[in-house]
Amino acid sequence: MSGETNRLTALAQEIMEHPVPREMDVLLSTGEQVTIALLCMALEKRGYRACSFTGGQVRILTDDSHTKARIREIDSSTMRSQIEQGNIVVVAGFQGVDDNGNITTLGRGGSDTTAVALAAALEADECQIFTDVKGVYTTDPKVVESAKLLKTITFEEMLELSSLGAKVLQIRSVEFAGKYKVPLRVLSTFEEGSGTLITLEEETDMEDPAIAGIAFERDEAKLTVAGVPDVPGIAYKVIGPVSEAGIEVDVIVQNAAADGSNDITFTVKRAESDKAKEILDTVATSLKANEVILDRKICKVSLVGVGMRSHAGIASKMFKTLAEENINIEIITTSEIKISVVIEERYLELAVRALHSAFDLGEASSEKVSE
Amino acid sequence: MSGETNRLTALAQEIMEHPVPREMDVLLSTGEQVTIALLCMALEKRGYRACSFTGGQVRILTDDSHTKARIREIDSSTMRSQIEQGNIVVVAGFQGVDDNGNITTLGRGGSDTTAVALAAALEADECQIFTDVKGVYTTDPKVVESAKLLKTITFEEMLELSSLGAKVLQIRSVEFAGKYKVPLRVLSTFEEGSGTLITLEEETDMEDPAIAGIAFERDEAKLTVAGVPDVPGIAYKVIGPVSEAGIEVDVIVQNAAADGSNDITFTVKRAESDKAKEILDTVATSLKANEVILDRKICKVSLVGVGMRSHAGIASKMFKTLAEENINIEIITTSEIKISVVIEERYLELAVRALHSAFDLGEASSEKVSE
Repeated sequence: MSGETNRLTALAQEIMEHPVPREMDVLLSTGEQVTIALLCMALEKRGYRACSFTGGQVRILTDDSHTKARIREIDSSTMRSQIEQGNIVVVAGFQGVDDNGNITTLGRGGSDTTAVALAAALEADECQIFTDVKGVYTTDPKVVESAKLLKTITFEEMLELSSLGAKVLQIRSVEFAGKYKVPLRVLSTFEEGSGTLITLEEETDMEDPAIAGIAFERDEAKLTVAGVPDVPGIAYKVIGPVSEAGIEVDVIVQNAAADGSNDITFTVKRAESDKAKEILDTVATSLKANEVILDRKICKVSLVGVGMRSHAGIASKMFKTLAEENINIEIITTSEIKISVVIEERYLELAVRALHSAFDLGEASSEKVSE
Repeated sequence: MSGETNRLTALAQEIMEHPVPREMDVLLSTGEQVTIALLCMALEKRGYRACSFTGGQVRILTDDSHTKARIREIDSSTMRSQIEQGNIVVVAGFQGVDDNGNITTLGRGGSDTTAVALAAALEADECQIFTDVKGVYTTDPKVVESAKLLKTITFEEMLELSSLGAKVLQIRSVEFAGKYKVPLRVLSTFEEGSGTLITLEEETDMEDPAIAGIAFERDEAKLTVAGVPDVPGIAYKVIGPVSEAGIEVDVIVQNAAADGSNDITFTVKRAESDKAKEILDTVATSLKANEVILDRKICKVSLVGVGMRSHAGIASKMFKTLAEENINIEIITTSEIKISVVIEERYLELAVRALHSAFDLGEASSEKVSE
């Protein structure tokens, strides 16, 4: 059924460029409704009793923000009664109803989020999401061949990995699962295996590595506005106009110089860097800044792991590893469970492999993949 | 959106030949849901405020006969509140929900029936159904050029005309309109005009013609089982097996002969006549009937009009008219507001034109079409 949302959107746009959101939801929600009916038929054909439900039918109550609604509450009574009768319950994702019974859709990330919300409402042992990958790896197996499939990962680590580019699960569903403490398992639709379990608890094994995985983002660009005055609100004056133009700003660092001036540096997607530069040129003029410098060939590499909290020396080991490879670090940012560095793009693979090896994340080459 | 139901049905049949009816309804109901959303967008684009609702959202309560449900009740409160706010209410036809909130579809004739049911629930002044014809004519304008568009017709007449082949409205919706006394107007989607109003009351004008219109059916075949014993239940023994084979039996006449034997004659669709003949041959043998005669070249012509009740001599005028054209009548059947004759198919146009003229149904050729 892939492509159905595009087909429906095209129908709407034949009529108006910006379709009424309420009606857009009535329209788009039919896509999943078709799917649940067909899935139930397929189950019935294989001899299972199955029953489909739209979001409205199981009262997935949302707010009334059409096309980007958020789930408030789910009434699990209908589902429970069906399950007690031995029926498989198939619920349409991505949709709900507001207080007045209007159909809403959840927007981006809504399908996985529905699954998690249903698991929470049903107090399920686990929510399993079948995708096109076997689970979450220590890093991208395309870059590091020995990348290891993680048996478990914490919600926090998963959130950091997701937003950093390990595109396994819709981030919104991970947040939701973390909030409601729903154990979430990612598995492959196409291959056998137990996938990766995303849990609340940190691995308790003392021998566990401090690092869960290495995430990276290509196609970044770095912008520096040099010599802005060191006054309150200056960061907002620089970053604000860029954000307001719809450009997503990632890593931000600010260095106050001894002479009372400031450099503000941040990264954006490379595709948006020219537009950002243009905006900043105007900003720089009005702020009487020295110059705006654009570096289009950088990338970001991040170590993620809740173990960082208890393991000292992760950062210094990271910097040492990169130094040994003669990789210059341009920006460093840290959070409680993540260290990110911005480096020249051409060193991306080298950096990821060196770090993966330095932190012993890979499968031993002689060892059979356990998974 | 035409062809959508076929597309969805094909999807289901890729999975199973006889899809589960409950899931079939979940699937098929999406067709109208797409349409109502798009219609509302088109209205909004033209500057009208509009709001779409699925059958479930306005609580079109039906029985639980999936794929052929019947409407039991409609809760008009949501619609009334929308209308009071000045919004156009667009409701999905062809669908509802049962007592347990399962989605149902109404099957054949369900869309027009929904419209009538909504009008009844809202106590509307009139239910207007836009079709591809200008309204109901005294007979088929393709056969009789002077056929006149009727300004009004009664439910009873419409029912007789519908079932006889004037395919203007789904008969089920006319029955429903008659039952709930909803004035029903048929209009053209493509041409201006006030169409035909289907009402409860007979035209009160004394000068009104007794006949509302002339209906006809081509492609009929006549079957006679000659010489069956004249005993109770014989008609069922002959007709029963044909009906049970799914063949629709139309006009039925039985003539008891003086010698205690019987001829049973009836008509079927020509396409099904060979199959019917085969069944009857077996029946005839077991009943020791003389023979089974199949005539594949007959048609049926019917005069319809509530005026027949008060106007004498309609039947004799009809027979006289046909006799003057040398048309032999093979079967005659009558009801309170209808006289049907079965004649040779080659006389169909001649008979319809002669009767149309004899009963003064046409527009005077000099007169401008008033409509």
